[in-house]
Amino acid sequence: MSPRFAFTITATDGRARTGAIAMRRGTIRTPAFMPVGTAATVKAMKPADVAAAGADIILGNTYHLMLRPGAERVARLGGLHDFMGWSKPILTDSGGYQVMSLADLTKRSEEGVSFKSHLDGTRHLLSPERSIEIQRLLGSNIVMAFDELVPTTATREVQAAAMERSMRWAKRSRAAFDGGGDHGANNAIFGIQQGALDEGLRKASADALIDIGFDGYAVGGLAVGEGQAAMFGCLDFAPGQLPADKPRYLMGVGKPDDIVGAVERGIDMFDCVMPTRSGRTGQAFTREGPINLRNARFAEDQTPLDPACGCPVCTTWSRAYIHHLVRAGEILGAMLMTEHNIRFYEDLMADLRNAIADGTLTAFADAFRGRYQRGKGE
Amino acid sequence: MSPRFAFTITATDGRARTGAIAMRRGTIRTPAFMPVGTAATVKAMKPADVAAAGADIILGNTYHLMLRPGAERVARLGGLHDFMGWSKPILTDSGGYQVMSLADLTKRSEEGVSFKSHLDGTRHLLSPERSIEIQRLLGSNIVMAFDELVPTTATREVQAAAMERSMRWAKRSRAAFDGGGDHGANNAIFGIQQGALDEGLRKASADALIDIGFDGYAVGGLAVGEGQAAMFGCLDFAPGQLPADKPRYLMGVGKPDDIVGAVERGIDMFDCVMPTRSGRTGQAFTREGPINLRNARFAEDQTPLDPACGCPVCTTWSRAYIHHLVRAGEILGAMLMTEHNIRFYEDLMADLRNAIADGTLTAFADAFRGRYQRGKGE
Repeated sequence: MSPRFAFTITATDGRARTGAIAMRRGTIRTPAFMPVGTAATVKAMKPADVAAAGADIILGNTYHLMLRPGAERVARLGGLHDFMGWSKPILTDSGGYQVMSLADLTKRSEEGVSFKSHLDGTRHLLSPERSIEIQRLLGSNIVMAFDELVPTTATREVQAAAMERSMRWAKRSRAAFDGGGDHGANNAIFGIQQGALDEGLRKASADALIDIGFDGYAVGGLAVGEGQAAMFGCLDFAPGQLPADKPRYLMGVGKPDDIVGAVERGIDMFDCVMPTRSGRTGQAFTREGPINLRNARFAEDQTPLDPACGCPVCTTWSRAYIHHLVRAGEILGAMLMTEHNIRFYEDLMADLRNAIADGTLTAFADAFRGRYQRGKGE
Repeated sequence: MSPRFAFTITATDGRARTGAIAMRRGTIRTPAFMPVGTAATVKAMKPADVAAAGADIILGNTYHLMLRPGAERVARLGGLHDFMGWSKPILTDSGGYQVMSLADLTKRSEEGVSFKSHLDGTRHLLSPERSIEIQRLLGSNIVMAFDELVPTTATREVQAAAMERSMRWAKRSRAAFDGGGDHGANNAIFGIQQGALDEGLRKASADALIDIGFDGYAVGGLAVGEGQAAMFGCLDFAPGQLPADKPRYLMGVGKPDDIVGAVERGIDMFDCVMPTRSGRTGQAFTREGPINLRNARFAEDQTPLDPACGCPVCTTWSRAYIHHLVRAGEILGAMLMTEHNIRFYEDLMADLRNAIADGTLTAFADAFRGRYQRGKGE
């Protein structure tokens, strides 16, 4: 029988690592990028195409799914995997980030966060216990602890208090997970390090999480507007505070060059809406930098989105055709752009894994950045 | 080498016929349904999935394509087939219908119709010669003659005048087609019978078209609000006025029961936006009648859209999931609904072809109508 959760590092290069997480629903090659399937769908893609693009795992959003269609309903329908037709692992976030950024009339207390749904105004509570229960009802394979978020611009005192509360909530999350029947036997739970950009707070948070014990550890509270330099500054110390033998997950990151820099700093897992959201707004990722397909210069460009890409979109259609679809507001435009962008991200992860295995990560990363930054300047 | 255009009838049942049109780009099994690919895309579907659903040919819209991306541009990009990634036959309409229903400030004359684009206000002319030129630039395999449309509620005098002008335009269309270089060697041209619901006008129109000579003949001017009974009344005589050894195409039709009744009356080809448009507004076609997936009764319905359907959507996802996608406004909802609906239409055509070949069309049609109408009453 496959293991519940087994992380193996097969090679390292500097602080970077490559390997795999073995789970009952499948193996996750690391460093891994998880496409975001907010509302039980990776927007504008069929699940089989998400897998074919190279994704070993996707992310589902607790906040969105608890409101629509509802966690109890998903459970009655057999869980998120059967509901959406995705058989590989699913990681669910805890709802902590979305409840603060999307919900109306939030009220925080030691118990949790009460709020009004942005969809229909109904009143809900998210607490560590309820968040874990929802993730169990969804059938999540990697469950995230429920945490409290404050802006990176808040004072150190506010950051410290939020981090300390998040650590108390991490302990309650772990207890709820362990008390949740077969949950603990089949799935994994990650803790989330907080502490903003402060090395001391990050260390205290890491120590508290290690004391509780988790299957993996996320670096939370970054990619919220602090900028790449500040984020990389934090990633110069934060991953090293977390156990070396467990996966490290940088939540909500990021742009391709963010991911490259974070892998160099020891991160193993990523999720971001960028490839899917950009795909719906006309931005395609290429090895020479991002391009906006709405631009008139692509109207008769017969090359593929990325001439170096082997995805089904790039081997079939031209920039000229996709320019036409995007300009005409055609759904197929969003479909093709999203499929290419997900493939671009998954190809980047494969290239990073190969470079680490070969011991050539620095050369790969420098060459990638050079090409990518030049393209952005165009 | 494949023939330019060869229509073979392999079986008849009453007035209905089944057979095939052999063309260089592929064979079209008749009776045939052509999904509509207005703006160089069958909305929300990849071309490979359109073919996999059973479509042998799709329709492109001259009016939309001449305005965006432009016929000359499509020609520079290698033609519509390469542009959109569809290798099988394409039929293009003449633009005559859309210019009257969509364009602004139309001015009709014997020369043609001048109008302002509904997209950007630019001024254009559609004439028989320009329509055929556009269809040639697009690389159309079945070109439609340019005709003039008037409402079915117009007086007989107005109907007669429009029909007579359409016949003069049919002659000019044929001449433009024949003068268009390799066009005549590789592709086919259909004339369009007009005359509203008047048997005498329809006969005069048919005779004029036969005198010119076409590869196939369309019954035009129907399905414009006259109702099914009036349409079937016209179809009781109109197809019989056209040559028995050429394909007969009923433009813009229709609902599944419209198609069944028209096949019984000797029609061989159809096109309609209904399966694609309905797919984007939550209506699914089933053998028990149409259902609206927005309806709350589907929220926990674990059966497929149509339990009798073998399409990739029905073998993977539940009504409950698609209800969720439609309610949430997810692109995947439009994708899955469209794919199922196109497959439903193509399966219906296959069932009709088989029933004609077996000599059981009446029994099939009566059983289909019985189930379908009961379902509509639910």
